[in-house]
This record gives sequence, C-alpha cells and structure tokens, in this order.
Amino acid sequence: MTHYANAKLQEEKVFKDPVHRYVHVRDQVIWDLVGTREFQRLRRIRQLGTTFLVFHGAEHSRFSHSLGVYEIVRRIVDDIFAGRSEWDENERLLVLCAALLHDLGHGPFSHAFENVFELDHEYYTRQILLGETEVNAVLKKVAADFPEKVSQVVEKTYPNKQVVSLISSQIDADRMDYLQRDAYFTGVSYGHFDMERILRVMRPRKNQVVIKATGMHAVEDYIMSRYQMYLQIYFHPVSRSAEVILNNILKRVKQLSLTGYTFKHEPTHFQAFFHNTITLEDYLALDESILFTYFQLWMQEEDAILSDLSRRFVNRKLFQYIDLDPGVELKKYQQLQELFRQAELNPDYYLVHDTTADLPYDFYRPGEEEVRVPIFLEMKNGELRELSRESIIVDSISGRMKRDHKIYFPLDFLEDPSTHAAIKKQILTLLRKDGK
Amino acid sequence: MTHYANAKLQEEKVFKDPVHRYVHVRDQVIWDLVGTREFQRLRRIRQLGTTFLVFHGAEHSRFSHSLGVYEIVRRIVDDIFAGRSEWDENERLLVLCAALLHDLGHGPFSHAFENVFELDHEYYTRQILLGETEVNAVLKKVAADFPEKVSQVVEKTYPNKQVVSLISSQIDADRMDYLQRDAYFTGVSYGHFDMERILRVMRPRKNQVVIKATGMHAVEDYIMSRYQMYLQIYFHPVSRSAEVILNNILKRVKQLSLTGYTFKHEPTHFQAFFHNTITLEDYLALDESILFTYFQLWMQEEDAILSDLSRRFVNRKLFQYIDLDPGVELKKYQQLQELFRQAELNPDYYLVHDTTADLPYDFYRPGEEEVRVPIFLEMKNGELRELSRESIIVDSISGRMKRDHKIYFPLDFLEDPSTHAAIKKQILTLLRKDGK
Amino acid sequence: MTHYANAKLQEEKVFKDPVHRYVHVRDQVIWDLVGTREFQRLRRIRQLGTTFLVFHGAEHSRFSHSLGVYEIVRRIVDDIFAGRSEWDENERLLVLCAALLHDLGHGPFSHAFENVFELDHEYYTRQILLGETEVNAVLKKVAADFPEKVSQVVEKTYPNKQVVSLISSQIDADRMDYLQRDAYFTGVSYGHFDMERILRVMRPRKNQVVIKATGMHAVEDYIMSRYQMYLQIYFHPVSRSAEVILNNILKRVKQLSLTGYTFKHEPTHFQAFFHNTITLEDYLALDESILFTYFQLWMQEEDAILSDLSRRFVNRKLFQYIDLDPGVELKKYQQLQELFRQAELNPDYYLVHDTTADLPYDFYRPGEEEVRVPIFLEMKNGELRELSRESIIVDSISGRMKRDHKIYFPLDFLEDPSTHAAIKKQILTLLRKDGK
Amino acid sequence: MTHYANAKLQEEKVFKDPVHRYVHVRDQVIWDLVGTREFQRLRRIRQLGTTFLVFHGAEHSRFSHSLGVYEIVRRIVDDIFAGRSEWDENERLLVLCAALLHDLGHGPFSHAFENVFELDHEYYTRQILLGETEVNAVLKKVAADFPEKVSQVVEKTYPNKQVVSLISSQIDADRMDYLQRDAYFTGVSYGHFDMERILRVMRPRKNQVVIKATGMHAVEDYIMSRYQMYLQIYFHPVSRSAEVILNNILKRVKQLSLTGYTFKHEPTHFQAFFHNTITLEDYLALDESILFTYFQLWMQEEDAILSDLSRRFVNRKLFQYIDLDPGVELKKYQQLQELFRQAELNPDYYLVHDTTADLPYDFYRPGEEEVRVPIFLEMKNGELRELSRESIIVDSISGRMKRDHKIYFPLDFLEDPSTHAAIKKQILTLLRKDGK
Repeated sequence: MTHYANAKLQEEKVFKDPVHRYVHVRDQVIWDLVGTREFQRLRRIRQLGTTFLVFHGAEHSRFSHSLGVYEIVRRIVDDIFAGRSEWDENERLLVLCAALLHDLGHGPFSHAFENVFELDHEYYTRQILLGETEVNAVLKKVAADFPEKVSQVVEKTYPNKQVVSLISSQIDADRMDYLQRDAYFTGVSYGHFDMERILRVMRPRKNQVVIKATGMHAVEDYIMSRYQMYLQIYFHPVSRSAEVILNNILKRVKQLSLTGYTFKHEPTHFQAFFHNTITLEDYLALDESILFTYFQLWMQEEDAILSDLSRRFVNRKLFQYIDLDPGVELKKYQQLQELFRQAELNPDYYLVHDTTADLPYDFYRPGEEEVRVPIFLEMKNGELRELSRESIIVDSISGRMKRDHKIYFPLDFLEDPSTHAAIKKQILTLLRKDGK
Repeated sequence: MTHYANAKLQEEKVFKDPVHRYVHVRDQVIWDLVGTREFQRLRRIRQLGTTFLVFHGAEHSRFSHSLGVYEIVRRIVDDIFAGRSEWDENERLLVLCAALLHDLGHGPFSHAFENVFELDHEYYTRQILLGETEVNAVLKKVAADFPEKVSQVVEKTYPNKQVVSLISSQIDADRMDYLQRDAYFTGVSYGHFDMERILRVMRPRKNQVVIKATGMHAVEDYIMSRYQMYLQIYFHPVSRSAEVILNNILKRVKQLSLTGYTFKHEPTHFQAFFHNTITLEDYLALDESILFTYFQLWMQEEDAILSDLSRRFVNRKLFQYIDLDPGVELKKYQQLQELFRQAELNPDYYLVHDTTADLPYDFYRPGEEEVRVPIFLEMKNGELRELSRESIIVDSISGRMKRDHKIYFPLDFLEDPSTHAAIKKQILTLLRKDGK
Repeated sequence: MTHYANAKLQEEKVFKDPVHRYVHVRDQVIWDLVGTREFQRLRRIRQLGTTFLVFHGAEHSRFSHSLGVYEIVRRIVDDIFAGRSEWDENERLLVLCAALLHDLGHGPFSHAFENVFELDHEYYTRQILLGETEVNAVLKKVAADFPEKVSQVVEKTYPNKQVVSLISSQIDADRMDYLQRDAYFTGVSYGHFDMERILRVMRPRKNQVVIKATGMHAVEDYIMSRYQMYLQIYFHPVSRSAEVILNNILKRVKQLSLTGYTFKHEPTHFQAFFHNTITLEDYLALDESILFTYFQLWMQEEDAILSDLSRRFVNRKLFQYIDLDPGVELKKYQQLQELFRQAELNPDYYLVHDTTADLPYDFYRPGEEEVRVPIFLEMKNGELRELSRESIIVDSISGRMKRDHKIYFPLDFLEDPSTHAAIKKQILTLLRKDGK
Repeated sequence: MTHYANAKLQEEKVFKDPVHRYVHVRDQVIWDLVGTREFQRLRRIRQLGTTFLVFHGAEHSRFSHSLGVYEIVRRIVDDIFAGRSEWDENERLLVLCAALLHDLGHGPFSHAFENVFELDHEYYTRQILLGETEVNAVLKKVAADFPEKVSQVVEKTYPNKQVVSLISSQIDADRMDYLQRDAYFTGVSYGHFDMERILRVMRPRKNQVVIKATGMHAVEDYIMSRYQMYLQIYFHPVSRSAEVILNNILKRVKQLSLTGYTFKHEPTHFQAFFHNTITLEDYLALDESILFTYFQLWMQEEDAILSDLSRRFVNRKLFQYIDLDPGVELKKYQQLQELFRQAELNPDYYLVHDTTADLPYDFYRPGEEEVRVPIFLEMKNGELRELSRESIIVDSISGRMKRDHKIYFPLDFLEDPSTHAAIKKQILTLLRKDGK
C-alpha cells in the first residue's frame, strides 16, 4: 500500500444528499474517484430507467445511488465495525471503493440495452476498473493489485466474503440505498425501514456479516419494503410498457442495420454494437442523452416501425396491456399474432409478451443456488439462524414470487378504424375477453 | 365554451408526487394537455439547469414542477376559493391551464441559452400556445379564444389580475412549488414553509389575491425560505461556475460557426440559432439530451477552447473563483486579462466576470417598477397593508440584495507549469492577493 | 333532526395536529362536543398507558387520538364518500360524533384498572353518552334519540354496519389513527403506511365498506405496520413490566382496603371502586393525575408491598423478566413460588406471569367469531374477496399470533444479599437456567 | 477522578427519540443519572406548561427534552470537538452531566408557580445537585467536587466559558433541542433548521464556541426558527390565557390560605409554599399530577373564585382577550376595573393584564447586559464577528421585540345577563371599542 491509500483530505468534504442528509468523504482516494469521467458519466444514466415515465419524480441517476451505497458502507465500517475483533481495518478502503464503483459498468437503460445487444454490465465494470481509464489510474496509485481486488469484490469472487456481503447479499448497502432512494424520489411511502437500527445490529463475523437477533423486526420491515417496492414500483405494468417499447426500438434498429437499411441519420454510436466490435471507448461513449438524441432523430426515419416506436417512447404514447400467459393460452396468443399480421401490425413489435420473471429482481430466496447470501440472525447464544426460519412473514414470501405475464399492444392503432376495421374489431374483442 | 371544457374523466387520475403527495386530475382538458408532446418535452429539461453538478439530487425536470404548480392552483381554486363571492368559477379552467403550461417555452439550460442566442422563453411559450402544436389543438377545443387567454395569463396581460396573481406574484403557485420542490430534491432543510396554512388564508379580491393578516407569520416564513434558497442553492458559486462554462461553450460554438470554422460533426440543431432563422420546430427540437450529446461530440473538436470547455462541463472539471468586482478593481482586472493573454489563455473564455445581479431572482421588492405584484395582508377591519410595512423581517431584506461579483478561472491550467510558468505564477499571486 | 344538527361554525376551526397536519371542524355540534368536560378529561389519560416509561415520546393523550379518528372519518365521508350512491349523507353527523367520542369511557391506565376492578370502558362510554353529562346535553340537542344512536355505533349494534365499520373493523379510522400517532410519538419508523391511498380506495357498499382491489398493497402495508407496532411497541416486554407493577399496586390497595388496613392517606377516590358502588361521577373523577398522586402518597404507606411497588412505578425501578410458560414448566414455576415465599417475597406480587394473549390486540383474524369485520377487496368485476385470500403476506400472519409467556420479578431484591442470601442464590440460578 | 468517571456500559444503550432518532448512552454515570428519582420526576412536568391546551400535541415532558440536550452535546463533543486542540477531553463528562441535568430544578408549570411563590428553579437545580439526593450520590462518585462543578456549569459561573456556552448561549444545545422538539410535538412547520450543519461548523475556541462563517445561513435559519416559534407557539395568546388562569388559581389559593380560609380538602403539599418554609423534599414532592389533582379538588371548594378558576383550567373554559396597554390607556383600564367591581367580578382575578415582556424569552439580543453570550462567526482569516453585524436578517430582529399587551377576561360571565346585565353591557361595549 502506498502513502496515497491513507491520504486524508485536509478538511472533510460533504455532498448534500436527500436520503442520507450528507455523504462524508475524508479519503483522498474516494474524492479522486468521484472526480473521474467514468464516475461522472453515471450522472447521465437514470437509476430507474423508464420508471420516470410513470413516477415523474424518479429522475435520479446512478451517480447519486453510488454515492449513497458508499455512504452506507462508510457508516458500517467506521461507526459499527471499527475496533471489533472480527473486522480487518485493512479492508476498509477496498470495500469503500467497491461500494462507490459497483455500478460503474451500467449503460443507458441497462436492462433493455443488455438484452438486445447481449451485453453484461458487470463485464464492463471490470473493464473500466482494469482498463485504461481515469478510475484505474486512481486505483493503481493505491497498489498495483488494488484495481483487481476492487473488481473481485464487485464480482463477488473476492476471498473474504465478509467484504463482499456488504455490497452484495440479501441485506447489503446496495439494496438499502436503492430502496430508500427510489422511495424518496418516486414519493411512495413504501421503502421506509429503520436503516439506522439495522446498521446498529450488523456484526462482522468470519467470512460473513450477521444481524443480531434483536434486530429481526427491523429486518422484516426491510424485507417487506423490498416486497412492496418491487410490486409497486419495479414491476409497475406501465413502466414495463415503456421498457417493452424501448426494447423494440433497439431490436428494430439493430435489425434494420443488419439488413442493410439506409438511415437518414447514421447511428454512429451504435455501429460497434451492431457488429459486436465494442471497445471500452464505444461503451463509455453511450449514455441516456445520446440515446434520447437518437430516439428523436429516429422519429424522422422512413421505417414506419422505428419512427412509430421512437415517437411513442419520446412522447410517452405507451402500449396498453392485458394479463395473458402465452404458455397457458397458446392458442389465443397465436390467434392474436395471426390477426395482427392480417391487420399489418408486425406482432414482433406490437404484440409483446412480457413477464416479471425476466426482471432482475427477487424478493428473498434463501435456498436457491447462485443467489445472494441469505440473512443470518445471531441468537443470544451465538447460534446463527437463517431469517426465514425465524420470521413467519419472511417465510411467507420467500421465493414465492408469482410470475406475472402480460401482453402489450398499441390500443390507439387498434381503435383506429381507418384501416382493417373488421380485423381490429376482432382483435379488440379477443383482447377484452377473459381468456380462461 | 364547448362541452369539452367541462368534460370530466370517468375516474379521477392521480400522479404520485413527492412534494404534494398526489397531483389530482379530474378535467379531461388537463389530462389531454399532459399527454401532448410539447408538455412531455419538459421531462428532458432540468428544473435547476446546472445545479445538479453541485447538489446531486437536483435532477428533477420542469415536467414535475409544472404538475406541481397546477396542483397548488387546483387546491386554491377548488378547496379555498370555490363558492366565495369574489371568485368567478368561469376562470377555473383558464387558471389551471395557465398554471400547467406556464413554463412550456423553456429551453435546455434556459438561462445560458437565452443569453447567448438572445432568446426569450416567454416568447416561445406564447408560440407554443398559439402555434401549430398539440397543446394548441387541445386548447382550441375548449374555445377559439382560449389559447390566447391562456397566453395572456402566462404573459400577465390578462385583464383579471386576480387570475394572473395565482401564477405570477410575490406569493404565487410557481414559487411555492419550486421552493419546496428544489428543497426536496437538493435535500436542504430550507425551503420548508407551511403552504397549507398559506393556502387557507388566501382570499380572492377584486383584481388581486390577498392574505388574511392572521397568516402573516407563515408568509414571513415563506419569504425567509426564498431568501435562504437563493443564497444557498440558486446563487451557489460552484453552480455558477458550471453556468459560466456552459455559457462560454455556447458562445464559442456560435463564434466558430459565424467565423467559418469547419466542425468535425456538423451542429445541425444549432444552425437556425446561429443564423437567427429559428422556427418553432427548431426550438422544440432542442432539449438537454441533445445538448449533452453535442457537448460530448465537441470534446473531440480541434478547436482547443471548445473541446476543453466541453470536457470541463461533461466531466465536471469546473472553474475556481475569487471575489472581485471589475468595476471597482478595474486595474487589477485589466492586469489579469493582459497576463492571461500572455499565458495564451483567452480571457474572454477563461477569465470570466459573473454577478448574481445577472441572475433571474429577487428576494422581495415591493416598491420597484415592473416587478411582481407585492403581497397584501388583509387586516381584521378589511384594510390592506403591504407585507413589508407589517413585518420587520421582510422589511429587513426587501430589495436589499447585495450584488455579488466573482471572477472565474481554470486553476488547473494556471497550476500547470509546463507552459508560461513565470506568467502563471504572477497570475496566481495576483489572484490570491486581497484586492483591497 | 333539529336545526342545530346542521349548524355550521361561522369560520372553519382547525386544530394543529402533528399526524394529520390539521383537524378541521365546521360543525357546531363537533365543536361543542370538544368543549365538554368529559371530552377534555381525555387530555389527562395517556393513549399508551405505561409505554412512555419505555418510549419516552409516548406521552400523548387519548384526546389527540380522538380528534385524529374524527378527522380521518371526516375525510372519508366528506372527500371520498360524499355524492356516492351507496352513501347516506344523513349518517354523516352520526359517524363523526361516534368517531370523536368512541374512547370517551376510557379510564386512567385502562387495561390494569379494568382488570383489577372488573370494569369495562365500553360500558362507561355508554353511560357518559346517555347519562347526565355535558356530552349528552350536546347530543340531545341534535335529536332525542341521537345519544342512543351514537352509543349504538360505538357499541357496534347500530343496524347500518357501514357506519359501524368506519369506526370499528379491521381497517377502521381508530386503528389508522393510532398506528400513525403511536409511531409518530414513539419515534419508530414502523407505523407508516399510505393512508391517503387507502382512503382513496375505500368505497361505501350496503352494510359495509370495501377496498378497491387496486389498493391491496397499501392495505398489506397497513397490516404489516400493525404487526410491527404490536411486536415492537404494544407488546414491548419492558412496558409490560410497568403494566405488571401497576396492576399489582391496584390489586394490593384493593386487598388492603378490603382487609381493613388503615391508610395514612385515605384513598377517597377509590372507595366506590373497592366496594363496587361506582357512580358515573366517581368514574369521571379519575384520571392519570389522580392516580399518580396516589402512587406518590402510597410510597409513604407502611405496607411494604404497596410502598415498594408504588416507588417502583413512580421512579421507574421495574421488574426483570425471563421467558417461562407456567403451563408448560409448571414444576419450575411452583418451585420458584415456594422459594420466593421462603425468601419472604410474596409471589403474588413479585413473581408475575404475564402473557401477550391477555393483551387487547390481534393482528388480523378474518375467520374467528366475535372479531372485527374482515377486510374485503372489491375486484374489477365487482366480486368481493377477503384480504387474506388474496395476499400471501396477510395470510401468513392471520391469526397466527405466538402467545408469549414471561415471568416478571424484582432482580434488585434477589441480588441483595442482606437477607436470605442462600435462597436468593438458588432462585437466581433457577431463573438463569434455560427451562427446557 | 475515580474509575467510575470513565466506566462504560458493557453495551451502548439507546433511547428511541422522535427528534434525534436515537439518544446514545455509553457512560455509566449518565445511565445512572437517568435512573435517579429526581430525573424520573421530570416525566411528570410538561416541557411547555399550558401550551398543550392550544396545541394538543404538546404533551411532551422535560424528561425527553433533557435527554435531547444531552444527546446534542454528546454529538458536539464526541463527533465534532474530539481531537481538536482547543478542546479539553477532561471537560467531556462534566458538560454531558450538565446538559442532562440543566432543567432538574423545574417545578410544575414553572412560570406561574415561580411567579406566585417567588421561587427560582435555578436555585432548586443547585439544591438537587448538591443536596441529599440520588443525583448527588451519583455525581459524588465521580469526584468530591463534581456536583459543585456541574452546578457551576448550569449556573454559568464555571470558569471555562466554552463549556458553559454549549448549554447556555445564543446557540446552545438547550435551545436547539427545544425548538425542534416543540415544533415536532406541536406539529408546526417552523422550528426546522439544519442542526447537523450547525454542529459541523461549531468550533471550540478559548473560553468560547464559535461558528465557522460558512455556516452563517444555517444559523440565520435557526434564529428565524426561534423568532417564528416564539411568535407562533410560546407567545400564543390562548396559551397565555391558560397561564393567566393558572397564575390566578395559585394566587387565590395562597391568599385564601393566608387569610385563614378553611379548605374542604387541606392543600397539604402547598403549606410550605404558603409559609415559605420550603424544604427540598417539599419541592420535589410537587409535579403536574399533584397540581391537577388539587385543581380538581378545588373545583368543589366554596370559594367562588377558586372553584370557578379551577373549573376553567381543568375543563378548558379560558378567558378571552383584547389588546390593551394599561400604561397607555390607563383611564379605560381603570374604568373597566371599576365596572368589574360593580358587576361583582373581582378585577384582580377577572381582568388581567398580561404582557409578553414578562415571558422568559428573547429573540436575539447581542448587546445587552446579563444576556446570553452572542454568536460569533469565525471568518476565513480567523477574525471573529458578531452575527448581527454580518446578517441583515438577524440585525433586523435583534432586540427589537415589540412588547405585546393584552387584557384577559371571562367573556361567558359578561355575556350572562342573569346578573348586572346593564353593567355587563357597558363593559362589553368598552371592551369592543377600539381604545385609540
């Protein structure tokens, strides 16, 4: 470790934060990381993607979330863990950096973007940490192997799982920040839980972080907040409608490009993505400003599907939806596809099946493979018990997520009688009929 | 008035709003206006321009503010004014529409943009209300002269000043929303005042809105919130630094264009602004996504000033500042300009004088011409008294704004000894010396 | 109905309320009821009894809770129900009065008091409503049968169960107020739920009030708040310790009186309670001031048990506790009783079994007899479904309350070696040993 | 100093506090002090005396305020001052104890009580600290001279004024707690200021505590909160009405006692106060429960004035008021006194002059003698400037308190025509006539 690793700012700096009141920075390393262009780029990527089209307050960025995660971890290690025998102060800077940088590889509207172009933001986080970036330059000054270590923590491969747990487990700083932050900016009353109490009962143990049993009810409350936030915000059907359209815009533009369509306005930023020759620079050049600029340019494209979908997204003319599981009601779904084709509405873009199971969220699944570390309560006698064994409420929702299926479609098109009036009427009847 | 003017939604719609909890919509007209592309465009324009670079939570848009102003006016007219003899229910829809649409003409980073291109957002609000727009189409359905009336209310020329006052006076719905909203999103504790109390003591009077004297202290508190918000948020010197850079980017790109510079990437969206041939479509095509896209493209331009300033804005490498009034310390200022030239730093772009007096804010100025209608208290006996006559606190700050002068400059350049080291040393000495 | 029933105040009156911001009163009847001495008496009775000894903020009275319940009902009937076909405006004043007065019969520290003296506060509410009281005088002015009607609503015997439901059901104004109020004053973060949303989805139906299915998650959140508040606040073991002592003070003083003990200071206010000759005046003469005055006088009594217990309560020297179910561990319990006797500690007062099942709370029990009306969701198609059928979370906690058993005892006495040292050591060993 | 001075609890204890979230206790001494009967007694004395009769939420006690003051001081010394050269860690426990105990000598409804019986709560604080009390026993265990030192800090005679300042200055922990706490419990929106920011800019200096100039606006906001709280809450005319009645009850009972009146119920607790033979035990035996018990007993006394005033206070039938300064409108006042006598209403009890200047509050008076230490800002160059020199707002209100005069009287008596109808009519005419 170099001297730089321990360098402190002459005077503590603070960021005013609506969720945590203040984010405190004493370490020069943290301050320098915040100033890098790769970290500043997170200002141009919304934390909740398309959700702002439903909850208009949700315009906050990954930048503010990242600061928030850092601040929570800082409080845990400086106010709760410091001085305890099971905590190694040498891990402090590492976990602070990992907290700050854990979302660095996120692109604009990550979910749809990664889906269409088959990318993985975690891969890019690693690239940014280890590649020729300002972030890497700062981290290297700490120690030659420091970028790699930070990357391991973010990727959950770091040997000391106690450190990993703070960023990534069923009750990590990442979730604790986003639940509160998303609740604050959307304005919903869910998402509140007594974080201060939870922090106070967190205890470092070998290779893990546990919760003192006296804090169980605060943890239950946190799990319920999660449940409510997923159902009310993250799975909101109208926000999924915007997501569906966004997905289809990207799908369409990719397909057009691959099939030799001539764009009025060349999508320069996307070429590397179309042809899978993406460099780190290509990736970092993207943000939501760029995407919104293209969406607006594409509103003028000749391709009717691309221009229509772009207009829908930009001007918020979203799709309507009904509950329908194509797996279960296959025949009805096929019938609808056929009718859409007859009505000259390409069902690939205008009759979209979407399911919450595709969404990157879970409630609380203690038993399954490859999921986050479950929550362990430390009983008075030192014994550890997994939360859902102790809490009837948590048990009730553990892993029991109902998969929700919806079909999205453009109601305005279907209600426009100027073309294919009879077929559209048939479609509407079918859509309105209860499928069971 | 057509039937449409009174059309109600089958079921009330609500928007979840973090400041007012819910924004309630019953009128079909309001619902339709929110759905127009011109109104949706406000989602892509931040309420506080560059402030998010200092207060990271301030990423909220003019869209949410506009809904907020509407909601406050709706509460006033529906909950407080309804049924009172001095209130004409026929003005209801008009004032609701004006509240919702009063900021429609704002462009991206309005202040800098209007300054460099000599525009006026109020002019464009009028154009959008009266031109060929979706908004105009909705308003015309109410009555042929309705768009003109809405425009008059926004422009404060509408004959009934009571209606104008609700949107534009010293204690209007516009300010009441933005103070609370900006406080909420920045996270500062100023900006709170008891709006519910203020609304409860507002009374419609002929050609004006007055405040019952029993509410004076709530109004004082509101005025103090304003004062604190201006000093803490709106005049924040670091946010002004970003504003200075933004201004200079636009100034530079305009100058380059007019002097025949060949851009790597043609600034298509700006041509009409360079040549003053702006159509409504040109204007509406702009938003902050577009600007951020250009800023990122300009980072690659050959012109050193343009690329440097763009990089500074995008990556938040802002200018430093000192207090210095060129009017008072003319000689020192001229000396600095000369030294900057010697150091090959163009003082037009790198030694910038900025004063709060140029900012579009005032505290409370009851006496001056052309300012907003002052606040009148209605005493028990019916007499009206202007607020600053009654309140020693308000009197103390009325019109007494201290003009603040600062000089902004790139400290990193000056501290780089690789060129002109001696001159730069001289500059730094001069900058650090107290001028008096 | 007399003219008085519809009399409105010249100007609306408001009470500033920390939970609901303002409590609004327009009706003369309500205003007059608040001014009665029987209603004012509720200021001298804490809403949460002994809880303030654990959560020091919980010093709020039944007075503020009663205003809160009134305000919630007022919002429901005036903002949500008014104008709907299934709502009878003639029930409005009745339900407002019942809301305001539903707790009128509560005495000081009701639970312990009623337990020892075998009283029922609901009986006294009826007596106050129908007896010679200021409240009765106000109600009679509305209509001769109005006091009786109000009493019926409070007693849940009023024929129109829709009206009863607003005050007393699984999701009534009573609970909605106390959860929020108790959370506010204790300062815990539980107890928050989106009441505004719940009110917006309440619908009057024949003989009941239902919740539109779209509001299910807000209702789930409310049920979870209840669950958390019960576990964290209402069942708090230390607050139960204070309750146990209080109970024993009253039990002791009653026993002393009945066995001819001569008090230094005659407990005049209690005579009627000792001899079961209680008049309404006797009942109304009591409040928590009076009780606290007696407790302080009894600190000087010669009876060691009475003075000790009084001192404990006043100076907050409470009992310690362990988990122990006398039903299951009968032998150990009997052994402890015997040892207490040997140590000259009367086990009737110093070894107290307490179980939460004795407490007047339940989570949510839809199926059982004689409980509150369950919550029905109204689905889109008009069908009604009981909440726990729809919500896995609510189902998980419905009626599954774990009965919690504790034994309370004075640890300080047991640790005092000046008397019976050996026996006390034996007791402590037994208490510390895990019984299973 | 004994070992006890540094004894830490095995595990930190917390009190849930609605204002500061948690109050943290690590020191055994603090824990023991909270457990003393003299400190527990503060639970039975309301922080805001009669204010709960106007703002029903204001039922909080001096107990919770005292914990709050302690917590603020703890944060200052542990989070801000610790480790700074101008701070002496040896003063830590002293200032924490003084913070916790500074209000220990307050009696029930202090202001009226001290006024009538010519007492001084600061004298009694000293008695409790130094006399034979549980508090004294705890303090003595720290060091023999420790009780005396604590007493000096509370009395402001302690040599190190830096320590005194934390408890008692223009911006001390006492005021910072009560403004926020009183705002929280009354529910008003005033009383909020950014305490966290103020704490962060407090700096220990020789013999004083200063504020870094960068925090000036937070301090301005605090001063304005104070101003608003005084005008809206502490000077509320209806709360003063209750105070006037309370004062007169005590005055009456004292006079009756001194003139040999035979009470139905002997006021035992008051004898020492009537005859000025007060022992510490007499003083500590009083609290608001006791007073409320007497008020209820006195409602049955034969003396018409005593029973009437007691009934008024208990059942909240308060006096009305008009603005009238007896000094200025002497003649009118004398005329009213005479008419009251004629109407057989004793003007000593029923025509009461009250002025805010008698109240124990000031806004901000930097210059006057014997007032609290003013606030000094520390400029960048280290220079100190008194706040009102820097802040135009603070300057505007410094010492400019308008003395407010009111006359209180029983409107119900005057409107009762059954006796002296003509005279009463005359009185009412006079009262309603504007005196100028």
